[in-house]
Amino acid sequence: MTGYPSLTGISRRNLLSLIGLTAGSAVMYQAMTSLGFAAESGFKGPVKLEGDPKGATVLILGAGLAGMLAAMEMRKAGYKVKILEYNNRAGGRNWTVHGGDTFTELGGASQTCEFDKDQYINLGPWRIPYHHNGLLHYCRELGVTLEPFQQLNHNAFLHSTEAFGGKPQRVRDIKTDFQGHVSELLAKVTQKGKLEGDVTKEDQEMLLEALRGWGALNQDYAYAKGVTSAEFRGYEKDPGGGLGAEPVPGAPIDLSDILKSGLWGSLANFGLYEFQTTMFQPVGGMGKIGEAFAKQVSDLITFNAKVTKIEQNDKGVTVTYEDATKPGAVQQETADWCVCTIPLTILSQIDVQVGAPMKAAIDAVPYASSVKVGLQFKRRFWEQDDLIFGGVSYTNLPITQISYPSTSFNTSGKGVLLGCYTWNGPNSYEFTSMSPQERVQRAVEYGSQIHPQYKEEFENGVSWAWHRSPFTLGCAGDWTDETRKEHYDNLCQIDGRIVLAGEHASYIPAWQEGAILSSLNAIERLHQRVMQG
Amino acid sequence: MTGYPSLTGISRRNLLSLIGLTAGSAVMYQAMTSLGFAAESGFKGPVKLEGDPKGATVLILGAGLAGMLAAMEMRKAGYKVKILEYNNRAGGRNWTVHGGDTFTELGGASQTCEFDKDQYINLGPWRIPYHHNGLLHYCRELGVTLEPFQQLNHNAFLHSTEAFGGKPQRVRDIKTDFQGHVSELLAKVTQKGKLEGDVTKEDQEMLLEALRGWGALNQDYAYAKGVTSAEFRGYEKDPGGGLGAEPVPGAPIDLSDILKSGLWGSLANFGLYEFQTTMFQPVGGMGKIGEAFAKQVSDLITFNAKVTKIEQNDKGVTVTYEDATKPGAVQQETADWCVCTIPLTILSQIDVQVGAPMKAAIDAVPYASSVKVGLQFKRRFWEQDDLIFGGVSYTNLPITQISYPSTSFNTSGKGVLLGCYTWNGPNSYEFTSMSPQERVQRAVEYGSQIHPQYKEEFENGVSWAWHRSPFTLGCAGDWTDETRKEHYDNLCQIDGRIVLAGEHASYIPAWQEGAILSSLNAIERLHQRVMQG
Repeated sequence: MTGYPSLTGISRRNLLSLIGLTAGSAVMYQAMTSLGFAAESGFKGPVKLEGDPKGATVLILGAGLAGMLAAMEMRKAGYKVKILEYNNRAGGRNWTVHGGDTFTELGGASQTCEFDKDQYINLGPWRIPYHHNGLLHYCRELGVTLEPFQQLNHNAFLHSTEAFGGKPQRVRDIKTDFQGHVSELLAKVTQKGKLEGDVTKEDQEMLLEALRGWGALNQDYAYAKGVTSAEFRGYEKDPGGGLGAEPVPGAPIDLSDILKSGLWGSLANFGLYEFQTTMFQPVGGMGKIGEAFAKQVSDLITFNAKVTKIEQNDKGVTVTYEDATKPGAVQQETADWCVCTIPLTILSQIDVQVGAPMKAAIDAVPYASSVKVGLQFKRRFWEQDDLIFGGVSYTNLPITQISYPSTSFNTSGKGVLLGCYTWNGPNSYEFTSMSPQERVQRAVEYGSQIHPQYKEEFENGVSWAWHRSPFTLGCAGDWTDETRKEHYDNLCQIDGRIVLAGEHASYIPAWQEGAILSSLNAIERLHQRVMQG
Repeated sequence: MTGYPSLTGISRRNLLSLIGLTAGSAVMYQAMTSLGFAAESGFKGPVKLEGDPKGATVLILGAGLAGMLAAMEMRKAGYKVKILEYNNRAGGRNWTVHGGDTFTELGGASQTCEFDKDQYINLGPWRIPYHHNGLLHYCRELGVTLEPFQQLNHNAFLHSTEAFGGKPQRVRDIKTDFQGHVSELLAKVTQKGKLEGDVTKEDQEMLLEALRGWGALNQDYAYAKGVTSAEFRGYEKDPGGGLGAEPVPGAPIDLSDILKSGLWGSLANFGLYEFQTTMFQPVGGMGKIGEAFAKQVSDLITFNAKVTKIEQNDKGVTVTYEDATKPGAVQQETADWCVCTIPLTILSQIDVQVGAPMKAAIDAVPYASSVKVGLQFKRRFWEQDDLIFGGVSYTNLPITQISYPSTSFNTSGKGVLLGCYTWNGPNSYEFTSMSPQERVQRAVEYGSQIHPQYKEEFENGVSWAWHRSPFTLGCAGDWTDETRKEHYDNLCQIDGRIVLAGEHASYIPAWQEGAILSSLNAIERLHQRVMQG
């Protein structure tokens, strides 16, 4: 599984130091690269489905990313492909809502987005990590233009109703001050000799030097108000030009206040592998990716096709479906093989003819709950008043976070904020239970505690509760270590003539990359099975 | 100077907690904002030059940002304005070089940039911090479109020839592992009770919890290979989709190895106030800003005007200059007032009729040395092979750093790297002494130690040594605390009918914002003087 060539008799690291000693560092680096020290990606490069499937037919269920990718690649490989999609559009959870779009939740609540034409909100996925190689590959291949998505903005807010009198703090202050105080504390105990035994004397000297630089400590190893800390945390009065321009350093926040505030808890959102720089979004909205796939396979898709039964025997697969626009109109489609990307929430309610292990797996995975609210404002006050350009503010309010647009920076037009994005927990359930309008109203009320300009500048909003999406009944597969152990492989195995794909059949749930890699893996194995005859 | 209203008898913080107790947090936040707790910017909003200067004339020396801003605003206010510029183009150090551009260094070495038409390099300023409000204001006003500049890229490299056998390390590994080890050490001494006296018992409990989250420590407060650290530092094998997709965590680097490597020293480049997210660059190159200003004032500029003498009396200012294209052709220009933005390196060599304090100030400030090299490559191997999208890799090699383009991400075309950017010190002097071609060659040689693909993919390059720029003779004013104390105010004072402006007359040297704020401050004071009659 590791992809490393086997080295017998000599360990890999020993071999490398041998090379290093004898051949110089450039050679050693090349050797390291070819020996696989770089992270192994889940994406193995462009898929190769070699061999002639001799007119075999494949029915694909679901026109999300996983389904459309499978359709595109299998048609290229010689299969006859059809797709059934319940929704009236392609893309699945890859979905950008623009002004004028209309959509309806389970329960019948219908919304028409009143944003201006150039404004949008991604109600599904909204950011792409740099290491999601499969997705980036298809963006390149399908001509989807990317721009950076700002996750970490040092000037965004961390906010708690229980701390600092409810006053939002700048990320940079909490981040810099926490790091500074931690560095000071560790420098102090180092100087007092309290690391003896854990760290060598020589390392202690270097540690002190490193802490001073990294923690913005002054010459006395203290984290204190002054020019050194100001170079990181900023100023009470910024440096200027001409006369009277001397800067005034800002005063660090006490460690005790930071600890009590709990705001340090949000800092992890900026360091996680999935949230690290450089992140991306497609220019014009995440939906551009779904549209790009749809352009490739739109001729294969039957929309409004609500699958009600999936049967198979040793000859092929028969799928029964209703036309969602004409209830009761039952139709059938048959094929030699089936790639099913229907979310498990839905699939578990359908009569599916698979073995007990896969059936148990389909039934085992609950779906995460998530609500998003998009809010259009008359002006980009977060940029103009607060100097917040992109990024995310985190709060202990039920809206959880506010994300600022990572596009059209520094312009004088309108803007749309992600005004609420919940993930599981009571906030998600509470927001899910509200009407779309009520969610918008609550997002404006909560958000105005962080940005008082909300009340003056708000124009209109939309919201979406993923548990009320008729097409997914939830946001994403919510695996635990236990369900993985018991059910994951059973979910992914080919069962007769059926294979499942989608983010739920991956180790990257809730991310588009999970759908991409799951689909690639599923069609590679299916093709192998077909080729075996 | 602070801009705070004075509060007598009750301290500002006490007043705030009083408001907080009685009126709720929203009111308190508004009060805080209006009382000035937010950082005070060096930019005070759009400049207002009120009152009629009654046809007063102003001669502006230099068509860089400071000079053009002064020209634009003073013409708007009713002045009759002319600009003299030594170079044959406007913009000054705001300068983007495109394929086909030709330019000549002091000493006569001439280069024609051979980049493809859509490729460019910023040989002067290249990034804009989010708090450079003056510059952002003019970008908005003049319609300069901005895009994010990536400074921190977790997947870029930190490299030392003296560490890890010369193998570049990922920023995320050094950053995450150093933070993790520091957290583990501090957690350990906290658990052992060694913080007693410095931190309260209650705070120690919270500190432990915070360190575990922030430092990616496991349940035993250890920073170790496993799922927790992998969520931040990444994996040996990334999570995938379908079967065989389980991730394998990567192994942290030992603290001792990190300390010895010195690579922690580069981490500061990602936290500094001037380098924090969100940073910007204009779409199409930094030169777009100079071009936008030039569009406003091009009718006022005389190019190739090499100033040789600046005289003044109580009636006005007389400036003598040569046409640089016709040596010996001496001309003169007179005006009521003069805004001089000529760099001090040049100005100190010109016969300038100002008082002794300003003359001493002009002579006191040395200029920083800086060299940049731009390299065009056949393909964006740093993205395709190394998953480095934008950002900066730092190295102990003389090139100091490699910066990857923050535009056209994930495309299959060519790309230009900033292959060398030195700042003062022996590397700058050494590179300055080389021919432009030799600098390019050396940048390719050094860079290939970090990116072996260099040698295969390199096409062509350009370079610029700022000390060899005939128009600036250096990169930027290099103030010390001592020279500031003695000379800064004397440099900025209006001397008779002459006022100086430019980054050198600011507390933000080497940044465009310094030029902008210096110019605004200078013309405000000059206008005030004119209005006083």
